[in-house]
Amino acid sequence: MYRSHNNGELNATHINKEVTLAGWVQKSRDKGFMIWVDLRDRYGITQLIFDEQRTDKAVFEKAKSLGREFVIQVKGTVIERESKNATMATGDVEILVSELNILNSAITPPFTIEDETDGGEDIRMKYRYLDIRRNPVKNSLLFRHKVAMEVRKYLSDLDFCEVETPYLIKSTPEGARDFVVPSRMNEGQFYALPQSPQTFKQLLMVGGMDKYFQIVKCFRDEDLRADRQPEFTQIDCEMAFVEQEDILNVFEGLTRHLLKELKGIEVDKFPRITYDYAMKTYGNDKPDIRFDMKFGELNSVAQHKDFGVFNSAELVVGIAAPNCASFTRKEIDALIDWVKRPQVGASGMVYVKCEEDGTFKSSVDKFYDQGDLKKWAEATNAKAGDMIFVLSGPADKTRGQLSALRMELATRLGLRNPEVFAPLWVVDFPLLEFDEESGRYHAMHHPFTSPKPEDMKLIETEPGKVRANAYDMVLNGNEIGGGSIRIHDKDLQSRMFSLLGFTPEQAEEQFGFLMNAFQFGAPPHGGLAFGLDRLVAILGGQETIRDFIAFPKNNSGRDVMIDAPAAIDDTQLKELCIKLDL
Amino acid sequence: MYRSHNNGELNATHINKEVTLAGWVQKSRDKGFMIWVDLRDRYGITQLIFDEQRTDKAVFEKAKSLGREFVIQVKGTVIERESKNATMATGDVEILVSELNILNSAITPPFTIEDETDGGEDIRMKYRYLDIRRNPVKNSLLFRHKVAMEVRKYLSDLDFCEVETPYLIKSTPEGARDFVVPSRMNEGQFYALPQSPQTFKQLLMVGGMDKYFQIVKCFRDEDLRADRQPEFTQIDCEMAFVEQEDILNVFEGLTRHLLKELKGIEVDKFPRITYDYAMKTYGNDKPDIRFDMKFGELNSVAQHKDFGVFNSAELVVGIAAPNCASFTRKEIDALIDWVKRPQVGASGMVYVKCEEDGTFKSSVDKFYDQGDLKKWAEATNAKAGDMIFVLSGPADKTRGQLSALRMELATRLGLRNPEVFAPLWVVDFPLLEFDEESGRYHAMHHPFTSPKPEDMKLIETEPGKVRANAYDMVLNGNEIGGGSIRIHDKDLQSRMFSLLGFTPEQAEEQFGFLMNAFQFGAPPHGGLAFGLDRLVAILGGQETIRDFIAFPKNNSGRDVMIDAPAAIDDTQLKELCIKLDL
Repeated sequence: MYRSHNNGELNATHINKEVTLAGWVQKSRDKGFMIWVDLRDRYGITQLIFDEQRTDKAVFEKAKSLGREFVIQVKGTVIERESKNATMATGDVEILVSELNILNSAITPPFTIEDETDGGEDIRMKYRYLDIRRNPVKNSLLFRHKVAMEVRKYLSDLDFCEVETPYLIKSTPEGARDFVVPSRMNEGQFYALPQSPQTFKQLLMVGGMDKYFQIVKCFRDEDLRADRQPEFTQIDCEMAFVEQEDILNVFEGLTRHLLKELKGIEVDKFPRITYDYAMKTYGNDKPDIRFDMKFGELNSVAQHKDFGVFNSAELVVGIAAPNCASFTRKEIDALIDWVKRPQVGASGMVYVKCEEDGTFKSSVDKFYDQGDLKKWAEATNAKAGDMIFVLSGPADKTRGQLSALRMELATRLGLRNPEVFAPLWVVDFPLLEFDEESGRYHAMHHPFTSPKPEDMKLIETEPGKVRANAYDMVLNGNEIGGGSIRIHDKDLQSRMFSLLGFTPEQAEEQFGFLMNAFQFGAPPHGGLAFGLDRLVAILGGQETIRDFIAFPKNNSGRDVMIDAPAAIDDTQLKELCIKLDL
Repeated sequence: MYRSHNNGELNATHINKEVTLAGWVQKSRDKGFMIWVDLRDRYGITQLIFDEQRTDKAVFEKAKSLGREFVIQVKGTVIERESKNATMATGDVEILVSELNILNSAITPPFTIEDETDGGEDIRMKYRYLDIRRNPVKNSLLFRHKVAMEVRKYLSDLDFCEVETPYLIKSTPEGARDFVVPSRMNEGQFYALPQSPQTFKQLLMVGGMDKYFQIVKCFRDEDLRADRQPEFTQIDCEMAFVEQEDILNVFEGLTRHLLKELKGIEVDKFPRITYDYAMKTYGNDKPDIRFDMKFGELNSVAQHKDFGVFNSAELVVGIAAPNCASFTRKEIDALIDWVKRPQVGASGMVYVKCEEDGTFKSSVDKFYDQGDLKKWAEATNAKAGDMIFVLSGPADKTRGQLSALRMELATRLGLRNPEVFAPLWVVDFPLLEFDEESGRYHAMHHPFTSPKPEDMKLIETEPGKVRANAYDMVLNGNEIGGGSIRIHDKDLQSRMFSLLGFTPEQAEEQFGFLMNAFQFGAPPHGGLAFGLDRLVAILGGQETIRDFIAFPKNNSGRDVMIDAPAAIDDTQLKELCIKLDL
């Protein structure tokens, strides 16, 4: 062992003890007659002292040579510090060093190894191993481990069994693109990396495993939007002999457990809202409910006056921004510009100041009197001192725009406190969504999702209105988990594939094994999957996932540290029976 | 919820309770006036009873229609069984059914869902989801989960942090073949799937993570020998600021913990033997020490007599098979034939019976007298009643042959009891091994393994004699884990690559990121990896890993259930910028 203690554990109780420590030189202060070195490891920092008077001359000289990030081992005596540092666990003591052993030197790191570093994103990624030495990244990884352990313990205690499903599976054209893996032993054939273990977990239910979970890597070869990774981690779960209610209860329990164990926060029973309600009330199926600002529909009170813009709109809808009546003209104009940006796409915005004295002042005073505006205030639940913002246009589009504004306002008003957690369930998702591009319906969740039996009568006539037994868990404006009750009947599954445009042959080729399995006694089952990367980031109070992944890829899917992907040998290509086609 | 209880939990304390159960029909016995159904789920079997007298007629009729593996839900009353079954947890009770709901029917399964099935390996693999319903497979998967949980708890309690390393990495030609993944976004370039997270875990040590572990899938595109899988699971571990002794202690502790928690077995401190000793004493670097039969070298006592075969041999070596002096001529001949099979390759075998009266009778009595044979008995530690078997020839080859015989004898003599566990460490492995085919040295463990400093003087002159700080954990004749102290110095790592035949350019291109990292203050570090599949199988008392993997592949690397790998679309190929080259 290179050490008797780590750098986070020595305190006043150890005074006069002989200890051996090892770690990295965080910094060194050389006062000529005295040298202090901050020695760092994963557990903390301990101050070392080399003293011209008390330290052996050779050791003292060697200490002068120490640079930042040198790896050293020291022996010495724990002594009381003259000037204690109450902010450090080891702040009461320092080590008077008697022996110094340089285990490895270090060239100057390309950025400072401090909580606030001078390194930009690119350089930090290239030298990720140095970035991991920094507390924010290190602590994120330790936190992730804790979350994963708590998930495993909780589910395991409920008799869930973690089963490893295969990584080398079969490509299916449905959904996002697969990463594929040429098979050398099966010439001209390819494995695919799983986008999720969906079919395997269903087969485990058919196999009687009853309660399954797995913390598992999944892969999607998508063009990467910001904060997406080609490989990502899911907490994947499935249960047999359950209804939606059972699943919601179990995973609400898990989430409550995580909030309690990791954040010390107790949350009440999660609200449940329908997809329709979410869209109408927040313009969004993953609403952030840490703050209010619910949508107020104004058609009945704002149309049929002389304001043509509203009269011709499918939807007139507003929100009350709390305590914003004091916004200046300049601030309002900036917000109007913000909603008119192409990313949001509104053509304009109406506002109403709800003055403290109960009167209203709006940008459409020409068309609406105080009585009209009072009704707007009622519809948007605006109080004196609030500001109502109103958008109008085609319903879906306008809701999306107002949702964007709602989030932006919340951010500007400081209402998105990362240490406040407001989880909820969104239920009753549509089974299908119409895809303009392909001109046909796609599964909103996936093709294995069960329609609500009571909506089945609509399936041929109004397929878009069929609701599914599908649900999302939403936390602070992020979908952190989603799932559904699955189809467990071969005929219904066949019918679903046909609705989704599969020919019987395609359905058989791609999912025949699953439909076949359903014939041998498939139990009713359902499940869900959490995105671990995002869950951990949100619990950790962050919006971006990258620092919660040890070795993330950049937006081109590259690992810039190891420089992957890369070209491979011709002999390798030949063995795999493929050639490049650039 | 489809059930109030599972099928393993009802007992006499529940009598008269109304319960709801769900599960599969294991079997049904129809006596005309009475029908018994065994209802099965993951947790057990509960007996249902339908009685012409007491059961509603419609329910009784429906019960007649139930076939094997139907999925049903029943409501009923727990009643005391007339003939109790003490071998079942629920054997004191049965359910008098009042309601029967068929949740799903089942066609006849292709093999019986019993502990001893009539299904062959191939059909079981094709219908793996049915195979998983069988207790032996189901219990193996549950056991695997338990092992993994215990590993995680133990290491986590010791401050190990589980860090997920990437699956999409870079191909390196060293070692076994990589599976590669074409990158759509980086045309003509490929990721590789990791054969192990080796370089990443070392970078985590450079990054100060201090103690890392991960239960992680690894991939090797090898021609599959029996009981190998292209994807397999490792318990991968690494520690900083440690010496070999520290690592052996930690992972010996882990293994001892697993044996205690999962098998209720306490084992003493593990023996440690050197690679050289293992090869000389057992002819094998993963000796099974549940039984003795150590090799006795006989050169000094068997050569320089008139027996030319021995005189001309590099090595004469024997083992004492316990209590085998009574072997018949036929049994001995069969063993001689066995060692002469091409798989073993001996040209003949000499035997010596150690009679109960202290005399010897051998197949070479013409050349050796009782005094000579007594010396053989001493060298092989043979007692009265034992039989000594002796092979001769080139040293390495002969040791391998005798090792095979030793294992075969142990099997025949019932000495390989799967419920006895005899772990040990084999240490001081050679750093390099000479590969006849390529005419150069290869790393025996991997190129990151540290040579023993005291052997460094031999590295240019006798590289084959340099020992490494490398070690294997062996359990019951299987290598279940192996690791090493790593090189943490850039210059030594460079030198090692050069010894292994890398040009400086190749070393830089493939491992430049690692050598670069070593310049920024790499701590001394080392680790090991356990093969989880094998570890679980051995702890589970089995020799083959397949039933401990939920969805294994066959020897051609195929998943016969989902029929993967498979051809992919031309559009997919085009997007990936590759074409087939068959």
